[in-house]
Amino acid sequence: MSTFVLVHGSWHDGSAWKAVIQHLEAKGHQAFAPTIAGHGKGANKNVNHAQCTQSIVDYIVDKDLTDIVLLGHSFGGTIIAKVAEAISDRIRRLIFFDAFVVNDGDSLTDNIPPDSQALFDKLARESDDNTIMMLFDLWREAFINDADLELAKSSYAQLSSEPYQPLIDKLDLKQFYSLPIPKSYLYCTEDNALPQGEWGWHPRMSNRLGLFRFVQMPGGHEVMFSNPVGLAEKIIAAGRD
Amino acid sequence: MSTFVLVHGSWHDGSAWKAVIQHLEAKGHQAFAPTIAGHGKGANKNVNHAQCTQSIVDYIVDKDLTDIVLLGHSFGGTIIAKVAEAISDRIRRLIFFDAFVVNDGDSLTDNIPPDSQALFDKLARESDDNTIMMLFDLWREAFINDADLELAKSSYAQLSSEPYQPLIDKLDLKQFYSLPIPKSYLYCTEDNALPQGEWGWHPRMSNRLGLFRFVQMPGGHEVMFSNPVGLAEKIIAAGRD
Amino acid sequence: MSTFVLVHGSWHDGSAWKAVIQHLEAKGHQAFAPTIAGHGKGANKNVNHAQCTQSIVDYIVDKDLTDIVLLGHSFGGTIIAKVAEAISDRIRRLIFFDAFVVNDGDSLTDNIPPDSQALFDKLARESDDNTIMMLFDLWREAFINDADLELAKSSYAQLSSEPYQPLIDKLDLKQFYSLPIPKSYLYCTEDNALPQGEWGWHPRMSNRLGLFRFVQMPGGHEVMFSNPVGLAEKIIAAGRD
Repeated sequence: MSTFVLVHGSWHDGSAWKAVIQHLEAKGHQAFAPTIAGHGKGANKNVNHAQCTQSIVDYIVDKDLTDIVLLGHSFGGTIIAKVAEAISDRIRRLIFFDAFVVNDGDSLTDNIPPDSQALFDKLARESDDNTIMMLFDLWREAFINDADLELAKSSYAQLSSEPYQPLIDKLDLKQFYSLPIPKSYLYCTEDNALPQGEWGWHPRMSNRLGLFRFVQMPGGHEVMFSNPVGLAEKIIAAGRD
Repeated sequence: MSTFVLVHGSWHDGSAWKAVIQHLEAKGHQAFAPTIAGHGKGANKNVNHAQCTQSIVDYIVDKDLTDIVLLGHSFGGTIIAKVAEAISDRIRRLIFFDAFVVNDGDSLTDNIPPDSQALFDKLARESDDNTIMMLFDLWREAFINDADLELAKSSYAQLSSEPYQPLIDKLDLKQFYSLPIPKSYLYCTEDNALPQGEWGWHPRMSNRLGLFRFVQMPGGHEVMFSNPVGLAEKIIAAGRD
Repeated sequence: MSTFVLVHGSWHDGSAWKAVIQHLEAKGHQAFAPTIAGHGKGANKNVNHAQCTQSIVDYIVDKDLTDIVLLGHSFGGTIIAKVAEAISDRIRRLIFFDAFVVNDGDSLTDNIPPDSQALFDKLARESDDNTIMMLFDLWREAFINDADLELAKSSYAQLSSEPYQPLIDKLDLKQFYSLPIPKSYLYCTEDNALPQGEWGWHPRMSNRLGLFRFVQMPGGHEVMFSNPVGLAEKIIAAGRD
């Protein structure tokens, strides 16, 4: 039985994993879902990427979790790469789940299409607090395309604005790319949060991992809402030895 | 409940949708399947793209259909784009189903591989009436690859020659690309009517839509024959709000 | 009912098909699984590509098999292309199953990523007998990613070292590319033995076949172990007229 630590993506907090954790626990696993610093409703959004990373490191060390399978979703991929640098001895395997795997020296926004970069930059500048709020149409069509309208609305209501600084911080990942920790990439075949093809998650991001285990399932970017049981099954397959 | 208007592709007529419509109606929806001008057995094949478009506009206006989900399959993608320009106020959503989404100023044949362009051109020149007949081997291997031989033959028997002019007409699509109508792209994962990769339907065609909902299902280019129930279910998912 | 001849890939021998053959026979088909010269435990590994091909030609001619559906897996794709040149009159259809389809004048290793080329070359030089042994981590993560650890180990135990010479022999395939034999390409959607994308099986290899039937199924490179019943079903679909 495994110990999973699930790191959410942008606009989310740890509560996004509730239904997934229920199924992982029903299968006999342990699972934790910390909220990244600067994330969640009511949080102080004034954070950078290093603070985001540190909050997850602290969570794992405080709970003294060891031999963990550490999963990062979307933006969370950049977090688990840096967490792995900090506490590699606690990690059995990394799972990148429709997640950013950025090259050494790049930021997350270096890895999104130019029109998305421009949109994010505009939204951050127009905000009071250097954050980006998800637009409902984008959420419904490109993120949770596999859900009905009701679920699209109820899941959207759980989101909060995303701090912009962690998305533009340039990341030193030299150490990450030399770590011998086994890695998996879990990809949802209808995920269009990044447009498929030239700018897509897979194989662009996944192949940067070098040797990795490829696991795939149907669904969009938000299967923790639209198919939490199926996702939990695939997390187990991606996380086993 | 939705009102669907299903626009067929080359070599087909409206009867191709019979089994799909049965299932849409069983689920409580309304569905219509007009035959494009110049299409179907016994039709006068001397048409251009504008006449094809007008025949679908006339059908929708004559029946006074409003708030429709307008779907185009294959060549039908070029038709619904022009229909949307003409009667955008009647359309709730567009679904491109393994369909051509051509750039402003291009023709359909500008979007197929050079060897297919050469074949089409040769077949049209060799015909009496500037049409192209589908070759059975191409149909069986590249279009209806997911069916057995019996279904490949019975569906082939329903085809008729395709007018060439609408495929080579250059299309002014500036207005289409500025319409705010929501759009979906429905893709069949074994569709090899256009060779996957550089010349494939997805993501090459789909990404031209800008923001769109991506829906996917197994099958080849002709799932209205090989899996009409599965197709109807995906049309519903692609067409909902 | 069809007569299948299944040609294994590198590191395997004919016994890899045991469970697949059971299911093909249960469905009323005949199936044969010869071991390529220089392959299998205890074999003399000093062979070149021509000798590998000749061993399969001899097997088919000795058994006087006719009207066969000839399938090649992985490296086996290069074998069936050359077998088809030698005895095309005995072949009803070719199935390339996550298989190499190499351009005229190229070797198999011309078609793998540079880092894999370097690894193979190093392993061959370090061996006593110009062979390459599969590394367990590579097997588990990139070849049989869809299996559990137990199956990954038991299937690995069936492998033996692969002769290097057949992988680097340049292949004259001019005749192959002019043969009118129908062809299918069967692709597993989680196959990462070749990294997906630029160096992937599909559509890079498959599109070289010209007109072909595309068939797809879930799974990694070794579904003959992880899903033999599902594979047998897809072989039947790929092999029918």
